[in-house]
Amino acid sequence: MEWCDDRLLLLDQTRLPLEVSYISCSTAEEVAEAIKTMKVRGAPAIGAAAAYGLALGALRSQSSDRKTFLSEIEAAARILGATRPTAVNLFWALERMKGVFRDAGEAGVPELKQQLLEEARLILQEDIKMNQRMGKFGSQLVPEGARILTHCNAGALATGGYGTALGVIRAAHESGKEIQVFADETRPLLQGARLTAWELQQDNIPVTLITDNMAGYLMKKGMIDLAVVGADRITANGDVANKIGTYTVAVLCREHGIPFYVAAPFSTIDMNLEKGDDITIEEREGSEVTTVFGQQIAPQGIRVLNPAFDVTPNHLVTAIITDRGVLRPPYKDSLQKIFIDSGK
Amino acid sequence: MEWCDDRLLLLDQTRLPLEVSYISCSTAEEVAEAIKTMKVRGAPAIGAAAAYGLALGALRSQSSDRKTFLSEIEAAARILGATRPTAVNLFWALERMKGVFRDAGEAGVPELKQQLLEEARLILQEDIKMNQRMGKFGSQLVPEGARILTHCNAGALATGGYGTALGVIRAAHESGKEIQVFADETRPLLQGARLTAWELQQDNIPVTLITDNMAGYLMKKGMIDLAVVGADRITANGDVANKIGTYTVAVLCREHGIPFYVAAPFSTIDMNLEKGDDITIEEREGSEVTTVFGQQIAPQGIRVLNPAFDVTPNHLVTAIITDRGVLRPPYKDSLQKIFIDSGK
Repeated sequence: MEWCDDRLLLLDQTRLPLEVSYISCSTAEEVAEAIKTMKVRGAPAIGAAAAYGLALGALRSQSSDRKTFLSEIEAAARILGATRPTAVNLFWALERMKGVFRDAGEAGVPELKQQLLEEARLILQEDIKMNQRMGKFGSQLVPEGARILTHCNAGALATGGYGTALGVIRAAHESGKEIQVFADETRPLLQGARLTAWELQQDNIPVTLITDNMAGYLMKKGMIDLAVVGADRITANGDVANKIGTYTVAVLCREHGIPFYVAAPFSTIDMNLEKGDDITIEEREGSEVTTVFGQQIAPQGIRVLNPAFDVTPNHLVTAIITDRGVLRPPYKDSLQKIFIDSGK
Repeated sequence: MEWCDDRLLLLDQTRLPLEVSYISCSTAEEVAEAIKTMKVRGAPAIGAAAAYGLALGALRSQSSDRKTFLSEIEAAARILGATRPTAVNLFWALERMKGVFRDAGEAGVPELKQQLLEEARLILQEDIKMNQRMGKFGSQLVPEGARILTHCNAGALATGGYGTALGVIRAAHESGKEIQVFADETRPLLQGARLTAWELQQDNIPVTLITDNMAGYLMKKGMIDLAVVGADRITANGDVANKIGTYTVAVLCREHGIPFYVAAPFSTIDMNLEKGDDITIEEREGSEVTTVFGQQIAPQGIRVLNPAFDVTPNHLVTAIITDRGVLRPPYKDSLQKIFIDSGK
């Protein structure tokens, strides 16, 4: 994700690993479309892209009247907010951008435009720094020689850079631990096969690709030492919404006595929701299941379910790795504590 | 699977559901190749196809000398036996075919050829009957309105006809119970999406396709009442080798208090192996994971694991549905009993 010439450049993740190509967004609507179609995906990356989307909405505004300008920004925020319901970073980023108005006093339109763009830049930069801090905290949980399972892609591609779950893996690797990664392919959209495998291969971190249904087999054989995944939303009690299949990984970890870690920045935590059952789970098109890269793989007309996320209950989560430290159960207390400590 | 004009016609399962096409095998080698490349698959179907393969080896023999003829048959049996290591029905069927010699007294070559072909026919016909009996026994375990999860394809396509796990589902449907099926797509080769979904759709049995990693989500939502799967080999203690991912389904069932049933004919039970750890698990080509219908879905050169099966330990199996009744734990006793009762 890069800001260049008053446009947002996004690496088109739907084309990876076959093709490394970028799309250029010059309006809020184009960014919203890129989020909806998952050209950019991953909770923190969606948040940063939405922030830039709102900045683009501001920059493209023709209005010089502050009130009209603000209502245009509100409209752009609604379009961006309607793209994907589950990841909370999206709403967090939009709220933070709106905070610019509230703090801007009597600033005029040109000044607001610059402040909004600056805020988007900050969100992106802070995300990378948060991931690096998270990586340091998380890396302490990774033993020398660990064989690590991850699900979906919580990497540089899912964030401003460095990654959440893959940030922990990167930090462990950078610290000289000889780790190995097993990447679930993560059907239906294959983020593990297409993105995680690609990212780790680029960084020369040893990675082995498996189908989602092989993780249990590997655990039973004693081939996995820990699992680490990202999160799209964490509720006040420590329940974790993440890519479909995460819950199954957590159940399998518990069955085999393997630690199950969640790595997520502060912005992923939603203290307004009490528990995982309160999270809206996005249902996506059935065609994502019945076709792979455009190839039909199932009978025409077959009925399909396609929930994009599931919720892992707090009792299956060994620890939550945040940019403010490693949280342990009971999460109701440990999550509240970091919010109080940070004055929010 | 059909015998026609001295050839074995096999529905090419690698082309389903896109294309319904048959291949014609006229030699044992052609049948072996069809088994290896999974044009015919499913433990009971492999057994029946291998029996016909041996009959083809016999029919094509030019030898009139009984000793040479028998050594040719032995060679054909070795080729057929070397195709796939995990399913025991393959070895069971080949052994049963060889039994024809032992029982044939001084019969000459032309007579032996006819007896071998007749035995292959019997194996196929008996398999269909066994499945129908299994269906009747299993259907009693299916409540009215049940929502049933199945993994891979243990249907008509995997057997001589009617199916094992899908035989239970068919019998429940035929008895008027308003059941619904959820079919795991079953990566890497998508037997659930391609074959189970297709078979059930053909029979107008309500079926919903999901990816393998969605089963846990559905169970947690209370949307699954029971799971039923087939088996490739059951050891004397009741451990079950079946398609990769079956073990994960069983762990999830236990976590949610959902019955997990295995449906398998007598020929799947291997009393020579004490426990699941003794079963050879077939490792297949990594390209099955990195490509879907020939389309590359992962980075070039990525390392892959591709075990074709896993083992579900007996304590996760609620009951084993056989053609001789429903077996309950402890399986060491209940399995032994049906072998004693049947005089084997």
